[in-house]
Amino acid sequence: MITTDILIIGAGPTGLFTVFEAGLLKLKCHLIDALPQAGGQCTELYPKKPIYDIPAYPEILAGDLTDKLLEQCKQFEPGFTLGERAETIEKQEDGSFIVTTNKGTKHQAPVVAIAGGLGSFEPRKPLIHNITDFEDNGVEYMIKDPEFYRNKKVVIAGGGDSALDWSIFLSDVASEVTLIHRRNEFRGHLDSVEKVQELKNTGKINLITPAEVMGLVGDDKLEAVVVKQAKHIEKEYEVDCDHFIPLFGLSPKLGPIANWGLEIEKNAIKVDNSLDYQTNIPGIFAIGDVNTYPGKLKLILCGFHEATLMCQSAYQIINPGKRYVLKYTTVAGVNGFDGTRKQAPKAVVKAID
Amino acid sequence: MITTDILIIGAGPTGLFTVFEAGLLKLKCHLIDALPQAGGQCTELYPKKPIYDIPAYPEILAGDLTDKLLEQCKQFEPGFTLGERAETIEKQEDGSFIVTTNKGTKHQAPVVAIAGGLGSFEPRKPLIHNITDFEDNGVEYMIKDPEFYRNKKVVIAGGGDSALDWSIFLSDVASEVTLIHRRNEFRGHLDSVEKVQELKNTGKINLITPAEVMGLVGDDKLEAVVVKQAKHIEKEYEVDCDHFIPLFGLSPKLGPIANWGLEIEKNAIKVDNSLDYQTNIPGIFAIGDVNTYPGKLKLILCGFHEATLMCQSAYQIINPGKRYVLKYTTVAGVNGFDGTRKQAPKAVVKAID
Repeated sequence: MITTDILIIGAGPTGLFTVFEAGLLKLKCHLIDALPQAGGQCTELYPKKPIYDIPAYPEILAGDLTDKLLEQCKQFEPGFTLGERAETIEKQEDGSFIVTTNKGTKHQAPVVAIAGGLGSFEPRKPLIHNITDFEDNGVEYMIKDPEFYRNKKVVIAGGGDSALDWSIFLSDVASEVTLIHRRNEFRGHLDSVEKVQELKNTGKINLITPAEVMGLVGDDKLEAVVVKQAKHIEKEYEVDCDHFIPLFGLSPKLGPIANWGLEIEKNAIKVDNSLDYQTNIPGIFAIGDVNTYPGKLKLILCGFHEATLMCQSAYQIINPGKRYVLKYTTVAGVNGFDGTRKQAPKAVVKAID
Repeated sequence: MITTDILIIGAGPTGLFTVFEAGLLKLKCHLIDALPQAGGQCTELYPKKPIYDIPAYPEILAGDLTDKLLEQCKQFEPGFTLGERAETIEKQEDGSFIVTTNKGTKHQAPVVAIAGGLGSFEPRKPLIHNITDFEDNGVEYMIKDPEFYRNKKVVIAGGGDSALDWSIFLSDVASEVTLIHRRNEFRGHLDSVEKVQELKNTGKINLITPAEVMGLVGDDKLEAVVVKQAKHIEKEYEVDCDHFIPLFGLSPKLGPIANWGLEIEKNAIKVDNSLDYQTNIPGIFAIGDVNTYPGKLKLILCGFHEATLMCQSAYQIINPGKRYVLKYTTVAGVNGFDGTRKQAPKAVVKAID
């Protein structure tokens, strides 16, 4: 059982900043995220795209935003359960909550902050009749650790940035990379398209277009994919492989959280914006894009504010009756849980003679 | 008469970010501030001090924060009335407001956003009986333009960073700089104290301590200050000068805004935090440290959020009945009023053969 002060569902920008604000109040945080890394959609969907409306950043790449937030909160030593989806929540007699993931990991905390963005990102799966037979047995919809594919034969399907970028990356790791797309045209960064062209020309990537994977072959585990290619219209053929990775995009789903007894409106969780972004269940808060209230804007900067106010109420729940007096970081500095201390240089009092 | 869409009282971080968010909605802004430059207390009181709780900035100097915010909003071409204090407000028949400063400058707008921080910064004045006779006639409490002192004889009083830093700066500009402080000890950055010591040793700054200015001498304009120094306890003496600049700190005062008919609580303006941070007077909003509501935290990051939500309501007031659909800057880019355009690099669609 993992125990913490604030259990945060979702490790996107709002979740990460919660760690920092909670840390200022000496509260510890643990984050659960279905994605294999922190950053939410900023990291998973558009790490190289600029955002222009983060206050005081005239321009910042979404991936850099994540890095900055991780750097800002690391002194407060957050825990992470990544690549697992928060599945069930149970209220305990002592008022705390136990959240269990789809892989059975259990977490206990007196306060739960849902910072789940648009929901957990579920992969779009191709319509191949026997695909579920091979899930986690040769078929993966997300790449968690590229080393997993070292010296393996890999087939990637898809025509966007993910398919292009992972094909490029794995061409140095896997023993064989085949990229299959139903069109000749790819949609992505010019750099990536050109790089795949070059790797195809030098034989480092096998390109099969326009084509589709129609079936999967194997006994215990995947052995080949069945490909139907337009120019071989007459017959389908097999491509040997250890792994098939369809990268057809992710689509956010509120998922199991929708069944936690929370008031839902417009696919988002209703919260009390007149005070602390608490949901209809005391002790459970919803912050960032996952919540809704009159006038709600799904902007990262709003999540930062919501997280900050929410932490004050979390403090009251965890330290009942104790009064917290806001201290400015410029004046009081920041004391990390890891023993670090940040602090403005002190003024000296010194005679001039 | 200066006309604009949103008239912002206060050019601190919240006011500056309002310009950016309003700009995204194609609304123009004009800012009034009693200080001679933008940035509010960040620039005036602690430009060299680090802030640790600006989201995604593990550390940023307050002065740099101002620079970043100015850079982020400059494409929306804000207007500024600086060094003047908003004094009166009058509602017009057409629903707009006219705000007049202490120097008589008039501004008209359908929406007023008070982002006044802790209030307008009023200098602490020394207790010298005839000091008001010389105000703007040899006595200044703030330095608006150092060039004003070129080749003049200047007496500065005070023992903190402002007194130290301006003495250093003006030692290169003025023909004579005298620094008077009632103690031998100065309180400030070590660098500044050491630099003043050095300039005193080389005769570039006359230092008179421990001493106080007791009176001012002059007919039409200031000609000398009367100094009482501890070691010359028997008699007071005169120091010739063109300017006397007491730098005893600034203290924020809500000031004339307190008389605008707004609901005031705990020296701050009550707003409706359940929607858009509007005050009890429709069309007047209060955002950032100047407002209060249940759970309010006087943090810069909260001002950013409040400004953003407020702009949505301003849009409705200015464009009644028109529906605004939120566009993400990452997707839609940013169109500056100055003709600039910022935009994420577009994905290409390109065949690989």
